[in-house]
Amino acid sequence: MRNFSETNITDAVLERIAGAGDPRIKQVSEALVRHLHAFVREIRPTQKEWEYGIDFLTRTGHMCDDKRQEFILLSDTLGVSMLVDAINHPVPDGATETTVLGPFFVQAAPEKQNGDDISGPMQGDPMIVTGSVSTADGKPLAGAVVDVWHSDNDGYYDVQQLDEIGDLAMRARFHTDANGRFHFWSIKPAAYPIPHDGPVGEMLEAQGRHPWRPAHVHFMISAAGFEQLVTHVFVAGDKYLDSDVVFGVKDSLIHDFVHCPPGRAPDGRTVESAYYHLNYDFGLKRAASNARAA
Amino acid sequence: MRNFSETNITDAVLERIAGAGDPRIKQVSEALVRHLHAFVREIRPTQKEWEYGIDFLTRTGHMCDDKRQEFILLSDTLGVSMLVDAINHPVPDGATETTVLGPFFVQAAPEKQNGDDISGPMQGDPMIVTGSVSTADGKPLAGAVVDVWHSDNDGYYDVQQLDEIGDLAMRARFHTDANGRFHFWSIKPAAYPIPHDGPVGEMLEAQGRHPWRPAHVHFMISAAGFEQLVTHVFVAGDKYLDSDVVFGVKDSLIHDFVHCPPGRAPDGRTVESAYYHLNYDFGLKRAASNARAA
Ligand SMILES: [Cu+2]
Ligand SMILES: [Fe+3]
Ligand SMILES: [Fe+3]
Repeated sequence: MRNFSETNITDAVLERIAGAGDPRIKQVSEALVRHLHAFVREIRPTQKEWEYGIDFLTRTGHMCDDKRQEFILLSDTLGVSMLVDAINHPVPDGATETTVLGPFFVQAAPEKQNGDDISGPMQGDPMIVTGSVSTADGKPLAGAVVDVWHSDNDGYYDVQQLDEIGDLAMRARFHTDANGRFHFWSIKPAAYPIPHDGPVGEMLEAQGRHPWRPAHVHFMISAAGFEQLVTHVFVAGDKYLDSDVVFGVKDSLIHDFVHCPPGRAPDGRTVESAYYHLNYDFGLKRAASNARAA
Repeated sequence: MRNFSETNITDAVLERIAGAGDPRIKQVSEALVRHLHAFVREIRPTQKEWEYGIDFLTRTGHMCDDKRQEFILLSDTLGVSMLVDAINHPVPDGATETTVLGPFFVQAAPEKQNGDDISGPMQGDPMIVTGSVSTADGKPLAGAVVDVWHSDNDGYYDVQQLDEIGDLAMRARFHTDANGRFHFWSIKPAAYPIPHDGPVGEMLEAQGRHPWRPAHVHFMISAAGFEQLVTHVFVAGDKYLDSDVVFGVKDSLIHDFVHCPPGRAPDGRTVESAYYHLNYDFGLKRAASNARAA
């Protein structure tokens, strides 16, 4: 086959990949070619615009290293991450809604005990987080693994300032107790702009968008026989709740971080300054392979 | 706006970018979001497949440096480069058809005189290239700039073996003479696989495709008042003419590289070995801004 023109090249490419051995690879490749060509046909890029596109993708790749994932930021800001999340996580009644993982998750967070303060060297408004993990129909789950991570009072994560603070902070892994409960102390997180000094920031500015996310605490919760829950709890009243740059906010995930006076805290400790209290109850969805056990 | 689901997230993203200041950026961004989301909705990627996609793009970016452009290879092998070429270069009667630039073009090729041998240290079957450059209606163009580049007998370009050969070769810039003609000596190029030790090679293998291009000589021809012509001339009879991995072959660009016995060559020189002769006449399309002069 030769002599490809605007009208016959898409079929030519589809024909060329028709021999893919794996049916899923064939399906994904064909869909990619059809939508990509339809996009190009619709916008009719000049040669210069095509060069800009190649350069944009190249710079996005060059921005990625072990501390920065610019392609995830691109997926997040174009709404693709939330779309993939929605496709994969229909949520039954009683189960907590999901949202994006975000770029600041770290695989091996420090193991902590319930009641520990995870703020490390960071200064800020004290916050106690109490919570429970249960099945969607309300049965407590003991021994569930609860990963938490959040930003500091200025909106920065530990991994963005490791040079200054020296170690991970505001990040830990807990296990629920016999009643399915966990609790810890830290500092209240703030709203923050996603890293916007790269190609994604350039795109947001060109699209007339701000780079901010409303304040939140990340949770990743795992228990044998249940789907892993990846979500946040957002601070009620934040001014970016309706314009989160990555489209991650759901009403059920917004919660009061209650401002409490000094005195006896929910964990029985006496504290000398005012603090914030977040209490949130999480419900896990049974894994498909665990259907028999339901 | 909050609570984005599979059904409402696309509109949410479109609403968010509706304020883009530049109408072209708005148009391209909107089309990108619609086609990208439609692709994701069609294939319904698992979280793992989404992660593979992020990793594939990241590795493609990391493969790019000043000697390798993996995103151009991706565009070429998905037929996007030829589609963009077709959109931008409708060809009037008498003008030469266009094809992809390819990843081996170098901005500052050495200036050579008509009749020079540009093969440098490379060994191979001698080849003389003679040609003309004229308007689409056949008027010779003197002083046109003719960039040429091609592979060696093993299918490698100079830039792929600079460490061994030390300098550019099989690559030069000529100017047409008073009759619009140019000619030079080199060695006959061979078919070659595009670089396939990266993500694009991984994709081709998964899609059941070979990475080969039929043998060709690249030409980029410029003359004031005319559209720059980017094209190849392909060697007639090559076994990859119907399966060029980048979809670049057009019948009008296939030409005999005539095998000639030793003796008097077309440039009057006497040669002692057999050689190949390519003669090709190029027609340039008048630039839109030059319409008055037509
Ligand atoms: Cu589409
Ligand atoms: Fe975050
Ligand atoms: Fe080539």
